Amino acid sequence: MVSSNLKIGVIGCGYWGPNLIRNCHELDGVSVTGVCDIRENRLQFISRQYPSLQLLTTSADEVIQSAITDAIIVSTPVSTHYELGQQVLKAGKHLLLEKPFTSTVDEAKKLIDTADKAGLCLMVDHTFVYTGAVKKIKELIDSGELGQLYYFDSTRVNLGLFQHDVNVVWDLAPHDVSIMDYLLGQIPRAIAATGMAHFDNRIENMAYISAYYDNNLLGHIHVNWLAPVKVRKTLISGSKKMVIYDDMEPSEKVKVYDRGVDISQDKEQIYRLLVQYRTGDMLAPNLDLTEALKGVSREFVTSIREPRAPLTGGEAGLRVVRILEAANRSMRRNGELVKLG
Amino acid sequence: MVSSNLKIGVIGCGYWGPNLIRNCHELDGVSVTGVCDIRENRLQFISRQYPSLQLLTTSADEVIQSAITDAIIVSTPVSTHYELGQQVLKAGKHLLLEKPFTSTVDEAKKLIDTADKAGLCLMVDHTFVYTGAVKKIKELIDSGELGQLYYFDSTRVNLGLFQHDVNVVWDLAPHDVSIMDYLLGQIPRAIAATGMAHFDNRIENMAYISAYYDNNLLGHIHVNWLAPVKVRKTLISGSKKMVIYDDMEPSEKVKVYDRGVDISQDKEQIYRLLVQYRTGDMLAPNLDLTEALKGVSREFVTSIREPRAPLTGGEAGLRVVRILEAANRSMRRNGELVKLG
Amino acid sequence: MVSSNLKIGVIGCGYWGPNLIRNCHELDGVSVTGVCDIRENRLQFISRQYPSLQLLTTSADEVIQSAITDAIIVSTPVSTHYELGQQVLKAGKHLLLEKPFTSTVDEAKKLIDTADKAGLCLMVDHTFVYTGAVKKIKELIDSGELGQLYYFDSTRVNLGLFQHDVNVVWDLAPHDVSIMDYLLGQIPRAIAATGMAHFDNRIENMAYISAYYDNNLLGHIHVNWLAPVKVRKTLISGSKKMVIYDDMEPSEKVKVYDRGVDISQDKEQIYRLLVQYRTGDMLAPNLDLTEALKGVSREFVTSIREPRAPLTGGEAGLRVVRILEAANRSMRRNGELVKLG
Amino acid sequence: MVSSNLKIGVIGCGYWGPNLIRNCHELDGVSVTGVCDIRENRLQFISRQYPSLQLLTTSADEVIQSAITDAIIVSTPVSTHYELGQQVLKAGKHLLLEKPFTSTVDEAKKLIDTADKAGLCLMVDHTFVYTGAVKKIKELIDSGELGQLYYFDSTRVNLGLFQHDVNVVWDLAPHDVSIMDYLLGQIPRAIAATGMAHFDNRIENMAYISAYYDNNLLGHIHVNWLAPVKVRKTLISGSKKMVIYDDMEPSEKVKVYDRGVDISQDKEQIYRLLVQYRTGDMLAPNLDLTEALKGVSREFVTSIREPRAPLTGGEAGLRVVRILEAANRSMRRNGELVKLG
Repeated sequence: MVSSNLKIGVIGCGYWGPNLIRNCHELDGVSVTGVCDIRENRLQFISRQYPSLQLLTTSADEVIQSAITDAIIVSTPVSTHYELGQQVLKAGKHLLLEKPFTSTVDEAKKLIDTADKAGLCLMVDHTFVYTGAVKKIKELIDSGELGQLYYFDSTRVNLGLFQHDVNVVWDLAPHDVSIMDYLLGQIPRAIAATGMAHFDNRIENMAYISAYYDNNLLGHIHVNWLAPVKVRKTLISGSKKMVIYDDMEPSEKVKVYDRGVDISQDKEQIYRLLVQYRTGDMLAPNLDLTEALKGVSREFVTSIREPRAPLTGGEAGLRVVRILEAANRSMRRNGELVKLG
Repeated sequence: MVSSNLKIGVIGCGYWGPNLIRNCHELDGVSVTGVCDIRENRLQFISRQYPSLQLLTTSADEVIQSAITDAIIVSTPVSTHYELGQQVLKAGKHLLLEKPFTSTVDEAKKLIDTADKAGLCLMVDHTFVYTGAVKKIKELIDSGELGQLYYFDSTRVNLGLFQHDVNVVWDLAPHDVSIMDYLLGQIPRAIAATGMAHFDNRIENMAYISAYYDNNLLGHIHVNWLAPVKVRKTLISGSKKMVIYDDMEPSEKVKVYDRGVDISQDKEQIYRLLVQYRTGDMLAPNLDLTEALKGVSREFVTSIREPRAPLTGGEAGLRVVRILEAANRSMRRNGELVKLG
Repeated sequence: MVSSNLKIGVIGCGYWGPNLIRNCHELDGVSVTGVCDIRENRLQFISRQYPSLQLLTTSADEVIQSAITDAIIVSTPVSTHYELGQQVLKAGKHLLLEKPFTSTVDEAKKLIDTADKAGLCLMVDHTFVYTGAVKKIKELIDSGELGQLYYFDSTRVNLGLFQHDVNVVWDLAPHDVSIMDYLLGQIPRAIAATGMAHFDNRIENMAYISAYYDNNLLGHIHVNWLAPVKVRKTLISGSKKMVIYDDMEPSEKVKVYDRGVDISQDKEQIYRLLVQYRTGDMLAPNLDLTEALKGVSREFVTSIREPRAPLTGGEAGLRVVRILEAANRSMRRNGELVKLG
Repeated sequence: MVSSNLKIGVIGCGYWGPNLIRNCHELDGVSVTGVCDIRENRLQFISRQYPSLQLLTTSADEVIQSAITDAIIVSTPVSTHYELGQQVLKAGKHLLLEKPFTSTVDEAKKLIDTADKAGLCLMVDHTFVYTGAVKKIKELIDSGELGQLYYFDSTRVNLGLFQHDVNVVWDLAPHDVSIMDYLLGQIPRAIAATGMAHFDNRIENMAYISAYYDNNLLGHIHVNWLAPVKVRKTLISGSKKMVIYDDMEPSEKVKVYDRGVDISQDKEQIYRLLVQYRTGDMLAPNLDLTEALKGVSREFVTSIREPRAPLTGGEAGLRVVRILEAANRSMRRNGELVKLG
């Protein structure tokens, strides 16, 4: 049973850590009690903002083992997720891991196994799943408003932040893959990917990923660190309606187009289809503007308390890692098709 | 030798034909003398606009053989290009073919051969090569202003005119492939493509094409008949500058970004690259607004008169068809890499 | 009674004339029979396109008096409208005048009077009233969907076409004023305007016009020949919904925002209003894409045939001229308020 | 003489206060020592973020009189600026006032007088003057690159935060007026304004302000709380080049258009001007992205230390208030011209 006041420890105070701390801090019956970072100056920065923090340390182990933490958020580079995750779960504590879940499918399976056996909550921070935009699109798909899905096409490009340890697929594509996984609710049959490392560090800075689903549903993702402007745009086409999700729009991020083609068989000429264009209204639905990390934090806490499986649990994390791993394998083999499961 | 007044016959008065007639008509020392279309109503439409036309016929052969034509423009479906083209050349007349050049590489080679032997002008209407936007980008590349090229990424999607005989690769991609061919000035080593036919006509309505060039230069094209809005956007990234070419912009179609990354080797840690971001001005150069078909017509006429090889002759047409053919082959084989000779 | 085939003469073949000829030409039971322009080359241009034209002349009088015309379209500079209009009506022929109707309120009244007495159709080409966009906005207003109207704000600026005889108010504002007149369906109480002539020709090249209506409804128009980009944007705000009409958008020209404020009286603090913001969906309705001049031509012909008053008859023309005249007067008096009768 | 460590007190912790505290806090040799707000919860909010704060109080007087403050930032509603400002200056402390400077021209003059006599720094937070965008435009104007200025046209509209005590002119226009004052570097001869209060609180929620400068330079500002989307757009036109400053653009906020008209006198027809259009490149210069309030804080501190007059001192504040006051007067008199100076 969870104590009425849930005490959370956070490991890693880079970009996401402080935002997760702030969002947890604002939840009722939740305290952030301990924080770890290997950089002293990040700890000082956090302590100035949260003077009530009980434990500030450069030792992850200390936060994990301390009696003042019930649950741990791990927001460190992906290469450390597996080891830290295992320690957290073995210490009997609930775990929220930053995306991507793990570096390999194997690691993902082992963490899920450990959490299952220990009866602990294991959640992955697939942030975009908690945005008003993605939730609205999910509603449109699940209600049948878009009809049968034809394709999902996502572009996430900008100038930068070259990573030294992971390529652009591990860095940017987890966003698109987790959105695609959530919205389509299916597992692709196969993955193919094309990428290029333009600098002699053998780390791909651009990539195109194709995901082949059943029923002719096609997924495609373009991620790129070497583009002059920031683009965050997804097209989703169904047999009834089509959606454009543009995360760079200040408002009207989701546009639903009542457009498409109506196909009928020409009775005379049996091999010829009759295609008619349909052009109707465009609707930009009002979106829930709550910060996505607020939803992430709330889901983590609620999943622990009820308890129940989180919306983006270990299995979702595994599905995403499986696609990322396959994309990397395909990319190294000149776009060869990699079958999943 | 060409008579001082060049007499042109046009076969096919669908979408492009009338525009080509108008543009030829406006050139000095050029007359459009004969026009062919299998639809009577199109001939009437043309004759109302050009009462001085000498020959209006439903027979292509008549236009080709008539003594009143020195050169022929063929603007019919691609499946007819080879036969008509051979007839034109064998009749000893210069030939301008609408894009795509031919349905197969074989056909392309044979037409080139026939024209060579007959010493006739053979040109392909790669329209976009004659736009102010593409000419300006070519200048930027050739002058070295963009530096070493990293990638060419083009998107051409809309809710579109489903074709009954050709797929989206043969319909839309000739534009992007001919632009890519002209701008990069290289032949890709290999092609891979992914496509999908969402209706039971086995005609792909969306496709992604990757072109692998030497020196890590990557080309990528997305063509799609099933998108809610019209997108015509190309990103070209070089080591010094990057270009966005957005043909849907009313003005400022070409934007040149003085942005990029500067890479240097970290002397201490030999395997680690130092990446620095560079963010400078963006320039949208003033573009030549002359209608592209005016340039096409002028190039055809000048190539005949001088005579000299046209900018987009049979060889350019062949290079484009080679890529389209490879893309189709790859698409039918689940994206398998297809090497180009 | 009108003959079953309506024969139309057109005076003036500048920018609008040929488009009006083409649109009339395409109507059933309508022929364009005679055309006048003082420039021989314009007549030749027209005759090439319409070889069946019976009369081509540089004399307006000839077209007006000829037995082959039942109705006349006058598409000449505004300074000539009154004289030509009177001649047409006195010749017993129906009249469609290009906007703006006349140069003065007096002229407008006299033309209306002449047409009334002769029982002839008098119509003004307020083109935008016949666009799908403006018709849709009119529907939204008339159905009460926007609620009580608060303001109409229109911007029409670009680099351009300096006129030698009329200022920017007479050149560009007739569009906005005729849209405002049609949509609001009211006559403003007073007009104020600010303008500036930046070149020593005393012809204002930019102006701001305010129109004061009853019930706190405010109209405002910005017209400008000296702007770097083309803007055609109108905001209309009502108590329930708001509209943005952007004519430069390739599609989605009209956007309806379910946004506003709800005002209630705070019972405790009698002088303090409670304002609550409402943010709902945005809808871009599908629009009728028929060319506006097709609607103009059809309205002219139908008004003659039935007969009935045209949607934009002499009275609409007069209301627009009254506002333009008042704006010019105010502009010359430093923005002094000019009351309308 | 100023102590080496400058100790700053802040009165008012609404929207701007905390941002000013943060920015001052980050400057070398500067401490924020005391903070006042009449709302206890705002004080708690601040104290959590800055545990080192020595004085937290609901009494403005306490912060002003305390020995731990050398300079005071007043970030409260404008109606309190005069009284608080006088107290600060009479306590011998330097003063930075949030915009707008004061409610009346009289108050502005008295504060300037008090500061002058006491030899204290008096500065107004005209935030936009310290943005990279406005600084870049100022450079373009001062260098002569735009040529002779023709007009300044600014639009600042959104659905928005209705104020209970001030109208939209006092709320939004201080931004545009302070930018216009800084960029044009001139005092307008006269002001005219049109406004409307659509709710029965007699507080105008929309207004158009015209500013008449010498040499046919015209300023125009549209501020509005009742618009469906947020617009922040300024056009500045000069005889050589034109600028569009769009603050809603994520990047490329400033675009410089090498466009315009070239006017020459037609020698034959003396009254007729020859106008030629010039269309050249568009340049979006790279902008300094430093937060504007960082520049504001630095300017305040530097002006105290050197000492020297701040870039936006009392005189700039007075010039802005003079225009706002005149606009309000004109608005209440149906747009009557109000002369300045």
